[in-house]
Amino acid sequence: MNPNNYVAIMAGGVGSRFWPASRTAKPKQFLDILGVGKSLLRLTFERFLAVCPPENFLIVTNEMYKNLVLGHLPELNEHQVLCEPSRNNTAPSVAYTAFRLQSINPDANFVIAPSDHIILNENEFVRIINQALDFTASNDVLATLGIHATRPDTGYGYINFHKEAKNGIHKVKKFTEKPDLENAKKFVASGEFLWNAGIFVWTAKAILKSIELNAPEVYHTLLAGKDVYNTEKEEAFIQENYPKTPNISIDYAVAEKADNIYTIPSEFGWSDLGTWGSLHAESSKDEAENVVNGEKFIIQNTSNCLIRVPKEKLVVIKDLEDYIVIDEEDVLLIFPKSKEQEIKKITQEIEKKFGEVYL
Amino acid sequence: MNPNNYVAIMAGGVGSRFWPASRTAKPKQFLDILGVGKSLLRLTFERFLAVCPPENFLIVTNEMYKNLVLGHLPELNEHQVLCEPSRNNTAPSVAYTAFRLQSINPDANFVIAPSDHIILNENEFVRIINQALDFTASNDVLATLGIHATRPDTGYGYINFHKEAKNGIHKVKKFTEKPDLENAKKFVASGEFLWNAGIFVWTAKAILKSIELNAPEVYHTLLAGKDVYNTEKEEAFIQENYPKTPNISIDYAVAEKADNIYTIPSEFGWSDLGTWGSLHAESSKDEAENVVNGEKFIIQNTSNCLIRVPKEKLVVIKDLEDYIVIDEEDVLLIFPKSKEQEIKKITQEIEKKFGEVYL
Repeated sequence: MNPNNYVAIMAGGVGSRFWPASRTAKPKQFLDILGVGKSLLRLTFERFLAVCPPENFLIVTNEMYKNLVLGHLPELNEHQVLCEPSRNNTAPSVAYTAFRLQSINPDANFVIAPSDHIILNENEFVRIINQALDFTASNDVLATLGIHATRPDTGYGYINFHKEAKNGIHKVKKFTEKPDLENAKKFVASGEFLWNAGIFVWTAKAILKSIELNAPEVYHTLLAGKDVYNTEKEEAFIQENYPKTPNISIDYAVAEKADNIYTIPSEFGWSDLGTWGSLHAESSKDEAENVVNGEKFIIQNTSNCLIRVPKEKLVVIKDLEDYIVIDEEDVLLIFPKSKEQEIKKITQEIEKKFGEVYL
Repeated sequence: MNPNNYVAIMAGGVGSRFWPASRTAKPKQFLDILGVGKSLLRLTFERFLAVCPPENFLIVTNEMYKNLVLGHLPELNEHQVLCEPSRNNTAPSVAYTAFRLQSINPDANFVIAPSDHIILNENEFVRIINQALDFTASNDVLATLGIHATRPDTGYGYINFHKEAKNGIHKVKKFTEKPDLENAKKFVASGEFLWNAGIFVWTAKAILKSIELNAPEVYHTLLAGKDVYNTEKEEAFIQENYPKTPNISIDYAVAEKADNIYTIPSEFGWSDLGTWGSLHAESSKDEAENVVNGEKFIIQNTSNCLIRVPKEKLVVIKDLEDYIVIDEEDVLLIFPKSKEQEIKKITQEIEKKFGEVYL
């Protein structure tokens, strides 16, 4: 493994679309959403151990999750958890990460990836990550993985790429925000669009240069601390200055503007697990297309359901079709799967009626 | 209140049709099934306080429920709880109760009633009970309350009565076991049939005479202890002899055979709460005909459901019609209400698959 390689995992999201399993106090990335005995964060960490050793990881998260992160990743020391005192979206997160890494190693070359996605083919994933790291190590470029678009999904951003490639790496023509269905269909049919998975690879040097150029306010706010990164003064600096950065995504602030960004078309069984429905789609099912995350159950004439109950709880269900059934200690949700986008609105209603206790 | 009046409450049933709320270790009569803050047993006890004082009550139950009974009815002393060492149906229960009462008071006149029914109009109920007690005190008769049959229910036994009445009290022509639908319809149309609620009134003397005549094995097995009832030797005698009584109901053993049995047609909002569906039918509903036993809920486009969750649990349900949703600590049941009679079969399957832990 190249000693310049680092992995930064973004673990600060609140995962509200996975309510009621995902809560503000313990969001999706800290849950065993797949029922495999490990949290999504843990799975992400273990997947990247093929890229660099534990000491080369950083976790970027909200300060309220620091102890959760260390609990799930005991291999890391406290100093490897970068705590954001405010939620300012991904551009400041990336900039902070890059400044820290640059102060550790001026040649730092890193992946920055979400903590809550699933990847089924880990070998292929690692192969592509290493290919991207090799590419960014020796070129003044930014790289992003582009996922082969298998359906006209309107829930993802798309990457339009130039046909010409070098070693399977294409220059990006344009990033596109979530399209409407008509455009999504055109994108998929054209064969020139990939899904933007939010998995980026670049050197600290290259991304900081691009942030300086394309998002100067983010850059200069955090540049002010360049002498304190990786020292004991870093925390106080971040506490004071990080909240002053603008709230902006790395996609919007940098990736969409940079003219040196490349993509590698990838197929490794990716899902961002954005909703209960996508979890159902990605999980192994019984013969009636049910996904049951529980150990004791009697389920009759029930199909296409996602059922998640505590391990020792017995669940008896008859005559249900296309429902989500989520039983958490303090919340029971029984909801038509096809209407899951309404769950977010429901959580707002819950906050109004009952306060934050169930969120 | 007449000092010869007593009330015996039968509280030994297991209430399996109310699974998963009702469990072997804590059956229906000990639960707050109505969501009013009191168990059915407690409600039954309080209803009868208009008939006699607490010291004139007996509770007949299985010995495993003795402490539960005393917990729910702290007004009683231990000696008032008659513990059956075996489940031999109601004829032995009634005989044991009558022997005990006779030894306390040779003129004892008592009601014996189930612990798990609901009665909406308590004043009318008490009026009829007192009328029956007056009648049995001064005549060598047995009396049973007959409920005005409002629908051709095939789940109840029926009482066919003679038209002639004296003070609203009719001689019984015949008891009928649960009929088929065709006969049930005929019964209701005729106006000569009442539902058998299993609420009997008689003196200890009269019922013992009738048991001696119609169920001599029950009578003589328990008569052997006539000198020990209401002494400290009673318990040992019952432990040894009660299990030797035949397993037979008071209806079958005595009521159906006796020629001195009378009934009082009654209307006081009675239900035996035999099933979840009958609880739904008897409970107050929201405008969509839902019965929700819980305090925190958001329920949309959902109708005709019975929903029972722990008090502090938030329940969110959308698009459900005619379902039972019961969330107990260790069991979640989501079942079409119209198929609730299958729940019993399911509990057998559960016992096979998972043992008794959920029953």
